[in-house]
Amino acid sequence: MAAKPTKIAVIGSGTIGLSFAALHLSRNTSCTVVIFDSRPDLQEYVSNNISGYLVDTDQISCIERISFAKTIEEAVEKADIVQEQGPETADFKIGIWPEIEKHAPKEALFWSSTSGIPASDQSRDMMDKSRLVVVHPYNPPHIMPLLEVVRSPATSDDVIERTLKYWRDIGRTPVEVKKECVGFVANRLAFALLREASSLVSQGVVGVEELDDIVCASMGPRWTVAGPFKSYHAGGGEGGLKSFMEKIGGTIQNCWDASDEDIRKGNIRVGESWQADICRQAAAAYGMADTAERDRKTKNVLDVVQKR
Amino acid sequence: MAAKPTKIAVIGSGTIGLSFAALHLSRNTSCTVVIFDSRPDLQEYVSNNISGYLVDTDQISCIERISFAKTIEEAVEKADIVQEQGPETADFKIGIWPEIEKHAPKEALFWSSTSGIPASDQSRDMMDKSRLVVVHPYNPPHIMPLLEVVRSPATSDDVIERTLKYWRDIGRTPVEVKKECVGFVANRLAFALLREASSLVSQGVVGVEELDDIVCASMGPRWTVAGPFKSYHAGGGEGGLKSFMEKIGGTIQNCWDASDEDIRKGNIRVGESWQADICRQAAAAYGMADTAERDRKTKNVLDVVQKR
Repeated sequence: MAAKPTKIAVIGSGTIGLSFAALHLSRNTSCTVVIFDSRPDLQEYVSNNISGYLVDTDQISCIERISFAKTIEEAVEKADIVQEQGPETADFKIGIWPEIEKHAPKEALFWSSTSGIPASDQSRDMMDKSRLVVVHPYNPPHIMPLLEVVRSPATSDDVIERTLKYWRDIGRTPVEVKKECVGFVANRLAFALLREASSLVSQGVVGVEELDDIVCASMGPRWTVAGPFKSYHAGGGEGGLKSFMEKIGGTIQNCWDASDEDIRKGNIRVGESWQADICRQAAAAYGMADTAERDRKTKNVLDVVQKR
Repeated sequence: MAAKPTKIAVIGSGTIGLSFAALHLSRNTSCTVVIFDSRPDLQEYVSNNISGYLVDTDQISCIERISFAKTIEEAVEKADIVQEQGPETADFKIGIWPEIEKHAPKEALFWSSTSGIPASDQSRDMMDKSRLVVVHPYNPPHIMPLLEVVRSPATSDDVIERTLKYWRDIGRTPVEVKKECVGFVANRLAFALLREASSLVSQGVVGVEELDDIVCASMGPRWTVAGPFKSYHAGGGEGGLKSFMEKIGGTIQNCWDASDEDIRKGNIRVGESWQADICRQAAAAYGMADTAERDRKTKNVLDVVQKR
């Protein structure tokens, strides 16, 4: 990175903001982070909560590189990166970028953590729409390596390249998403599996807990090591994915057809009757979730695969 | 298990048969395995190939507990477990079970490794249909912990319980599937995600390799530690999955609707035009797959999560 310490302005101090702040501070040991949020107790709130995100790192060295801004202008002046995770409304985001643009350096990268409002909407009133790109994490970003870098048609290649480089340099997995689409990629994939899971549970094929056990003992570890295409490419032997599709294609289509029919018959739409039973089963099986234990275990899993 | 060594008859010596044989021998150190297959070079073939499946174990002690049978009768006499992975046709399986039933002890467990022919079809000509259950692995079974124990309406509770106990006792993850359905559960889930992945790649949103990177850096590790329901239950905070669905449900339904439309528009059916490009991308990205490296990494991942 630059010779001077990278200055990162974090706009919004919710759980995603704090998680990103902790990620930058722990992985990019020369950066400084300035946090802006309109909440009146910002400094006290961050001080009380940031240490939960600073795992396996020198907390003191991280915390002493945090500062706070009272205005957007103060936050973004001289910033190298402005990372926004404010309220998830188009109005808020459309309103804030022209203000950020006015006060930030010309070269600063502008990233929105939105899970669904594309850069082409958010940049509507910007002078230079080529500067904005969505950098959508898979929560929580201080644990999970993925960043979906979702470009708008206006986003410049230079912004994409510098964004990818930043994340790669600190050991994360940024992936360029070339077209804006509903839900971006990771959630689309996960929700497709969730719908199938909900459909099978609602038919009584397995319960919520059994379904989770199935995934943890099969696709989870498989897809940690190799994604679905690479896995099925291996499944096809010497002929790769092509052979796999030739051999197993009929079975796959039968499954897809059965899925469509079951989803239609079961009326697997959000808010319909299947939902209450599945939520009840989840509450009975899991009670109050322990995300700290989950995050610790996930970190151990990632340490294994990311070791070269 | 029983005081005398458990005798396991493995019917069919393809890759799944050898993988199961290796699993039994390495995890159940007092068992003996007898292999039956109609291939003339059976003994030589097994001797040449079994060691690839016997990883991190005392190979000599495993191999000396293997024997070979020249007939079904010889294989299954005095067997405690008969595990079938012969040709994947209904005719073969319907034909073999009455013969096995005739020669095996009354208490022997009968397991089919089929990925799609339900026990209710396979047991058509059996005297006692309650004895048969599908035990479907997630390949390869000597690595992956999942066994889908798919009962037919006739399968007895006793058979289910003894089957689940056997696998739990040797540290695997057997899950009872209560209703026979097309593709069972694991493949249905994986293929649902595969369809969505294929749809997004075919639209040019991301490439094959980027899609795999997304999964490996997000859902893979997440679902290794907690399945989809448990993950979203945690995502809902104190209110669990119910809160999650209330907060995010609208987004989920939007994604499902977009998926349906994209799949329809892209004609994402097996054998249609999207398929060739995706297979080409996979071949270019991955060449010849190295399953040994994949299996070694997967084992390391599983060691982390299965440590108590």
